Amino acid sequence: MNCLEERIARDGVVKEGNVLKVDSFLNHQMDINLFDQMGAEFKKRFEGKNINKILTIEASGIGIACVVARHFNVPVVFAKKAKSINIDGDVYIAEVESFTHKRKNQVIVSKSFLTSDDHVLIIDDFLANGCALQGLISIVNQAGGTVEGIGIAIEKGFQMGGQMIRNLGYQLESLAIVEGMDPATGEVKFREQ
Amino acid sequence: MNCLEERIARDGVVKEGNVLKVDSFLNHQMDINLFDQMGAEFKKRFEGKNINKILTIEASGIGIACVVARHFNVPVVFAKKAKSINIDGDVYIAEVESFTHKRKNQVIVSKSFLTSDDHVLIIDDFLANGCALQGLISIVNQAGGTVEGIGIAIEKGFQMGGQMIRNLGYQLESLAIVEGMDPATGEVKFREQ
Repeated sequence: MNCLEERIARDGVVKEGNVLKVDSFLNHQMDINLFDQMGAEFKKRFEGKNINKILTIEASGIGIACVVARHFNVPVVFAKKAKSINIDGDVYIAEVESFTHKRKNQVIVSKSFLTSDDHVLIIDDFLANGCALQGLISIVNQAGGTVEGIGIAIEKGFQMGGQMIRNLGYQLESLAIVEGMDPATGEVKFREQ
Repeated sequence: MNCLEERIARDGVVKEGNVLKVDSFLNHQMDINLFDQMGAEFKKRFEGKNINKILTIEASGIGIACVVARHFNVPVVFAKKAKSINIDGDVYIAEVESFTHKRKNQVIVSKSFLTSDDHVLIIDDFLANGCALQGLISIVNQAGGTVEGIGIAIEKGFQMGGQMIRNLGYQLESLAIVEGMDPATGEVKFREQ
């Protein structure tokens, strides 16, 4: 088991309805040392890739992306939920449905910060049905940029998102792929990698 | 001028209505090396303080807080906009009015991640009228914890938030305090520190 799998096994909480709560270390309270180890692992897995920018999505992707970015020495851009009066009209837009919140959001990235010159590593905390990722890939494509890879903390391997993204030919690296969870025992089963 | 003031002078864009756009390096695209320098500066300014946790608020505080946290070797907790079905009922709640979005949000922090044992450094990107900070201070107080200090990237010194927080006796450190902005020339005037 890698450091993230070990942490999930120790501190993750399994709830009914395929909910895995990791808010003590990943997406509410955030363990920055763990994020740093995850950054080193992503750096290894994307070795040799020409990456000049990291793209993520608010809110819980931001912390991981920023700590991971130190390992790649690149800036981070985060897709914003569309609402700010501070965003200029010149934006890329994608529609994203949240698994957690059961609602659709438009997310936007300013055209100033993503262009056809960009070689992008997409980072997010969770991958389930893949809606958020599809939106981020769409935004990179709108910009004419290149998706060099996708780094996910926790993939729910029993949902379709991961397979669909890999079928499309992207290098998708998930540090922990959950194959199943048992709310009765709290046990989490990981895919061998 | 420190590194953040220099960057604002170079890349900040002044708009009508006292809007300072810093989204090319601070709150949409994020310059992680700049955040790291800011972290080192906060570490110096809060030297000797017993800090075991950083508290921030989604979304644009998270990136800064996570990079700053490496300098303090502590975890980060971010206050969430109240909407998630993944949050347990046991939360601290504060009402926060956004200057940018002109709307009120409830923000929440799980009681599991903030207690009376916590010595908290609050980090955020902007301080204007101080509403977000008041909410975060209220949450630390609800938990019975101690606010050891408040670190802000950019304070709008011509609004009341900073003075009010300092009057309350908190050590508030803003890396750049903007005294005035001229949308015609684009010039930004900083308070001498």
